[in-house]
Amino acid sequence: MPQNLWIEEKSNENLKQGYRVKKVLFSGQSPFQKVEIVETYGHGKMLLNDGLVMTSQRDESIYHEMISHPALFCLPQASKVLIIGGGDGGTAREVLRHSHIRECIMVEIDEMVVEASREFLPETSCSFQDPRFKLIIDDGVKYLKNCQEVFDLIIIDSTDPIGPATPLFNESFYQDVKRCLKDEGIVIAQGESPFYEVPMQRKLLSIIHELFNISCIYNFHNLTYPGGLWSFAYGSQRIHPQDHFEAKRVEDSQLDFHYYNSDTHRASFMLPEFMKKNLGEFLS
Amino acid sequence: MPQNLWIEEKSNENLKQGYRVKKVLFSGQSPFQKVEIVETYGHGKMLLNDGLVMTSQRDESIYHEMISHPALFCLPQASKVLIIGGGDGGTAREVLRHSHIRECIMVEIDEMVVEASREFLPETSCSFQDPRFKLIIDDGVKYLKNCQEVFDLIIIDSTDPIGPATPLFNESFYQDVKRCLKDEGIVIAQGESPFYEVPMQRKLLSIIHELFNISCIYNFHNLTYPGGLWSFAYGSQRIHPQDHFEAKRVEDSQLDFHYYNSDTHRASFMLPEFMKKNLGEFLS
Repeated sequence: MPQNLWIEEKSNENLKQGYRVKKVLFSGQSPFQKVEIVETYGHGKMLLNDGLVMTSQRDESIYHEMISHPALFCLPQASKVLIIGGGDGGTAREVLRHSHIRECIMVEIDEMVVEASREFLPETSCSFQDPRFKLIIDDGVKYLKNCQEVFDLIIIDSTDPIGPATPLFNESFYQDVKRCLKDEGIVIAQGESPFYEVPMQRKLLSIIHELFNISCIYNFHNLTYPGGLWSFAYGSQRIHPQDHFEAKRVEDSQLDFHYYNSDTHRASFMLPEFMKKNLGEFLS
Repeated sequence: MPQNLWIEEKSNENLKQGYRVKKVLFSGQSPFQKVEIVETYGHGKMLLNDGLVMTSQRDESIYHEMISHPALFCLPQASKVLIIGGGDGGTAREVLRHSHIRECIMVEIDEMVVEASREFLPETSCSFQDPRFKLIIDDGVKYLKNCQEVFDLIIIDSTDPIGPATPLFNESFYQDVKRCLKDEGIVIAQGESPFYEVPMQRKLLSIIHELFNISCIYNFHNLTYPGGLWSFAYGSQRIHPQDHFEAKRVEDSQLDFHYYNSDTHRASFMLPEFMKKNLGEFLS
């Protein structure tokens, strides 16, 4: 293998990011996208969809902890979780660390992402073996449209709103989310970049604000997403992420996290001024 | 001008970042480093030293607000500030927004950075005209060794600990910082990447922890620094960044910030778990 092989992500028309690659572990074309798993020097194994970095072994725990635990530590009675997307398995892994979760359904559209992650990213996909885990290969929009179940937590662990994930950023999808969520439930959605995707953040937050009494956005850090700062959107009819949070629950859980703790829980919802200006009208 | 001209930063041996460039405004070789100012499509004008992005017009306000205001809003009586480095002028600009500051001395080693910024980055270097501002072109280490003055706030606005800034990360330098700082004063220093520069963060924090009663580190976001998450170190004998902070002062100041507010003040000191594990022994 050449020692100077690089993979280059064209993040947007003005920005590129390059990672030095040890070897290509998997490359395939699914009906939805090009799926690649490479081993890099600086960031461990990486999953790319259509040339965009989805997850890197070096920091995937941050994304997956922060999409799961802020909601779950506000829902100590939760038992049933739905994940839309999340094909690499990292979100399911974090959800299932909570022993009170009895069932975690993951609806992923692209079987190739699941199978490649099962084979080449076992650290991320390890919960695919958990008896509480149920995999459904289907379009999440269609699944939720027909779904008759009700969940404590619905996590929209989607890619960007280009390609297969586009309908996951529409209001009609969130009406189904609301219908399938308990009033004491929470929806969390991949919330894009506060720097580069303000119109998309405004669209997503405006939908959540219209449908839910409580609409928030919170931040985390991602080494490989453009700009490094990224967000999750938060919606609920009754559960407020600060008022219903108790730091003691995190300590009592005795779970060992890489990034999440009671401080990051509180700090992640405290927004920089430009985000308040951009999104304030949709926050409650 | 070609529409597909890119400038590429090799951030470390495994990571590259590329920015599409409109035109090169300045390129020179000083006795210390190569100095370039380019106009990009996505990030406005950018200053690069030895090929590493120092500041971009799109987000420089974040860096400069966060190196200045957390300390200054804990020091409502401060009048005298020393900046070591900071050649583009952005830190001086933010410091001098506080009307109680009577004198701001900036000691920059590289006159070419100052002159290029004066000409091509007037939005950043605008305070070079302020009568309270005093520029000294000198080695900051040497300056402080011989300095007989005492300051309310010393800001080490340095580049990475390679090249001219290397001695700014040594204990002997911080002994001079301490000697030239009031007991009710604060030192703030560019604190490197929590992801990529843990040994350097540990070294810097260990020095501050040894010399000052209060040693902290706080985070901010930078679009162009590798990983996006970056830190400032904080040291003081008497002034704690949370205990001595009053949110009301920020509101009363009527200053309009892009990033800083009383929430980001508090949140920036609330560290993710891996930073507590890496640095906890040096924090107080």
